[in-house]
Amino acid sequence: SAFTRGLKTVTLIPGDGIGPEISVAVMKIFEAAKTPIQWEERNVTAIQGPGGKWIIPPDCKESMDRTLIGLKGPLKTPIAAGHPSMNLLLRKTFDLYANVRPCVSIEGYKTPYTDVDLVTIRENTEGEYSGIEHIIVDGVVQSIKLITEDASRRIAEYAFEYARNNQRSSVTAVHKANIMRMSDGLFLRKCREVAENFKDIKFTEMYLDTVCLNMVQDPTQFDVLVMPNLYGDILSDLCAGLIGGLGVTPSGNIGANGVAIFESVHGTAPDIAGLDLANPTALLLSAVMMLRHMGMHDYGKKIETACFDTIRDKKVAITYLARHRTTPYLARHRTTPYLARH
Amino acid sequence: SAFTRGLKTVTLIPGDGIGPEISVAVMKIFEAAKTPIQWEERNVTAIQGPGGKWIIPPDCKESMDRTLIGLKGPLKTPIAAGHPSMNLLLRKTFDLYANVRPCVSIEGYKTPYTDVDLVTIRENTEGEYSGIEHIIVDGVVQSIKLITEDASRRIAEYAFEYARNNQRSSVTAVHKANIMRMSDGLFLRKCREVAENFKDIKFTEMYLDTVCLNMVQDPTQFDVLVMPNLYGDILSDLCAGLIGGLGVTPSGNIGANGVAIFESVHGTAPDIAGLDLANPTALLLSAVMMLRHMGMHDYGKKIETACFDTIRDKKVAITYLARHRTTPYLARHRTTPYLARH
Ligand SMILES: CC(C)[C@H](C(=O)O)[C@@H](O)C(=O)O
Ligand SMILES: CC(C)[C@H](C(=O)O)[C@@H](O)C(=O)O
Repeated sequence: SAFTRGLKTVTLIPGDGIGPEISVAVMKIFEAAKTPIQWEERNVTAIQGPGGKWIIPPDCKESMDRTLIGLKGPLKTPIAAGHPSMNLLLRKTFDLYANVRPCVSIEGYKTPYTDVDLVTIRENTEGEYSGIEHIIVDGVVQSIKLITEDASRRIAEYAFEYARNNQRSSVTAVHKANIMRMSDGLFLRKCREVAENFKDIKFTEMYLDTVCLNMVQDPTQFDVLVMPNLYGDILSDLCAGLIGGLGVTPSGNIGANGVAIFESVHGTAPDIAGLDLANPTALLLSAVMMLRHMGMHDYGKKIETACFDTIRDKKVAITYLARHRTTPYLARHRTTPYLARH
Repeated sequence: SAFTRGLKTVTLIPGDGIGPEISVAVMKIFEAAKTPIQWEERNVTAIQGPGGKWIIPPDCKESMDRTLIGLKGPLKTPIAAGHPSMNLLLRKTFDLYANVRPCVSIEGYKTPYTDVDLVTIRENTEGEYSGIEHIIVDGVVQSIKLITEDASRRIAEYAFEYARNNQRSSVTAVHKANIMRMSDGLFLRKCREVAENFKDIKFTEMYLDTVCLNMVQDPTQFDVLVMPNLYGDILSDLCAGLIGGLGVTPSGNIGANGVAIFESVHGTAPDIAGLDLANPTALLLSAVMMLRHMGMHDYGKKIETACFDTIRDKKVAITYLARHRTTPYLARHRTTPYLARH
């Protein structure tokens, strides 16, 4: 049994488009590295539960509730009206309140920037993503940005603890409290309060627009950044762009009590699905984050090193297809170079 | 009189910190170029009108109402609670609904990017800047993002007309209508409708996060971008960063019936105020935008050429002071090199 063999079970959500093949790549690499993980595959498609509410499939929910850990490929964006993003529904279902995206320059993958080494930590449950909107009168619409003390404190604590546990020296709170004085003001106040308990970590606060400007001028000045939901959506993509795009950046959605889903945040790239051209780097590095989250630091290090060595030694060619700017691909023999290192 | 000499009057708001000296620099350059402009100087400080409402000083309002055109240096951010940003109050007072920021690579001013040539057009009156916020219960706050059909149509029309009048070929609407379906959805719908009337201009729509990512990877793919208020705040700073920062990027706030205020959007840099070190490029290029807005294309071209030639020929050194990352400075002899060209 899994228990006697000492294996840990992880819920694998391969996803759509290139999702299944990059998942296979990751599984092969994990096997080659003799990682003590066994996979429980689950599909996530649109399901309507009682009362027409959109839910994730019960067998996926059940698996996640048991394993607590998920690894997830890209899910296609639903087109039906009123249908929520399945990515968001997963984050919501398991209250995955912290979205963590490390952006580190990759040796051998040239971009205009070098020595980027930062982490965006995004509040993942509220803010502009509350989904509350109204028509006031014809032609006048409002969306509500919801900020709570609890969620703000929780993400601030996560950010400072992350900084401390990962030998990082500073946390920057990103905000527009000069404009949204009450909502971003509350978020910022909680960051300041939490900062008081982490005297070993330098705390700074900066306007979102200033961060964007300084980020493209000199990203090396940043370390850990913490921010409300939408700002994190923007900044995490911007920062991914600095180091090569969503095809090479890992992501983790972290909840309470160890629950977490790690995911590649690129698209499903349907046009190359099944052609063995898709680049599994983002999912692989997300799986490495997962291993560290599970305390399997040695396996994580081993696989990460193999991945970075392979890219550095140009054993794979990461190229862009014009039509899918956000997803880089390996030119050919996708999984082979990673495997060759073991 | 001004009339007989054929001079046009412009309201000059020198502003705080380095504002007065960069204004003097611009005035000297205008004089050297024999630009038929006369300046009417007005201070903008915090004034409380009837009922405690913050207003801009009546003599400034009166001047603007008459001249219709303003040129403005940086204003210091008020610190008193409840006090609005004077920058925002000016935009609001004159209903300056379009914030226009061209970002063009400057020859001789090296950044990681070349051939950037784009314009951000930001809705300047509503959205996240509506200023409506509530405490729902203790620890739960909401900010309201207000989007109207009228303001969305108006800014979309401005963007397409701008594209047509400036020989630009495409307009990209930037949004998060996958999340804010009603508000950004309305904005996007208006853009699509207006696009129908501009078949000569290519129309595309993109998510804000995707724009940020693609922007840092290849800004040359963008042309005119139009977006709600906050997204414009972010993207305009990001784009300024690509070409050298707020010290070299012009900005215009455009209203109906020709009313407009052109401004440098960098800070007041109090630590170097009065030292003849401040770089007037952003205010000068804003003044060039102003001349074009007033139909004085030849004067605009002449001054712009002198400015760019001076930078290209390294007659001035634009350096960054570490403490003011967002404002580059000329190393010395601030106004002289520009003047030398005339
Ligand atoms: C898929 C989409 C709804 C999502 C978001 O907006 O958060 C994505 O952009 C992300 O960053 O994970
Ligand atoms: C001064 C500040 C209120 C303003 C804004 O947020 O719009 C500034 O950042 C800008 O872009 O003009």
